[in-house]
Amino acid sequence: MDIDLPDVLAEVAAQFARYEKALVSNDVAVLDELFRDDSRTLRYGIGENLYGHSEIMAFRAARSPVGLMRRTAKTLITTYGRDSAVASTLFYRESSPGKVGRQMQTWVRFAEGWRIVAAHVSVIDEPPGQTT
Amino acid sequence: MDIDLPDVLAEVAAQFARYEKALVSNDVAVLDELFRDDSRTLRYGIGENLYGHSEIMAFRAARSPVGLMRRTAKTLITTYGRDSAVASTLFYRESSPGKVGRQMQTWVRFAEGWRIVAAHVSVIDEPPGQTT
Repeated sequence: MDIDLPDVLAEVAAQFARYEKALVSNDVAVLDELFRDDSRTLRYGIGENLYGHSEIMAFRAARSPVGLMRRTAKTLITTYGRDSAVASTLFYRESSPGKVGRQMQTWVRFAEGWRIVAAHVSVIDEPPGQTT
Repeated sequence: MDIDLPDVLAEVAAQFARYEKALVSNDVAVLDELFRDDSRTLRYGIGENLYGHSEIMAFRAARSPVGLMRRTAKTLITTYGRDSAVASTLFYRESSPGKVGRQMQTWVRFAEGWRIVAAHVSVIDEPPGQTT
């Protein structure tokens, strides 16, 4: 198992950056593209659990585009082999002082490119001593 | 990319079951074994963010063994190729009515066996219409 092969890591990092840009600008087309179009794709969100690409797309389409800007911290991307990776980051929004968001995504390489097959986003009170 | 190869799925399901049993019985040795012993292993918990196997082990060692029993629902395990998988489940505890837990783990096969390389656990209010 080769971990963090530089070319693989660069590929995933580029897609992760593309996702982040699409998220804060509410570019729904890119967000929908980067989640794998499959019924097994899963997204646990801040306040909802979405099963399959259709539910995820419906959520994106209905979401308010206001207030999505955020600051990320402690972003960690680790690749395992040439076809799988985990990308995780903390995030902060000015509208939620004292709170920290956690976003974790599993990425898999398919013929069509790297896709998110599972994601989990949650917000908690900032743990003591962990402010970034 | 072969998804859900039966023999691979069976392997991961067996390790997932082993993890669940260890969790509710607070079998710290098994929990520590199943999280990969590496500084890149990451666990976003219900109230804490743990970076690396050492922090995860310290959390397990300090955790109260009381009240860990839970009911799981909508468990989904999907394998990608022969060496990676995502295992996700909702969970409920009698001590937290109206709340639903979400646990998502990325598993990777190493020479020593299947290991969790990243996990995210969070608890939210049960979304309307999603009670199981």
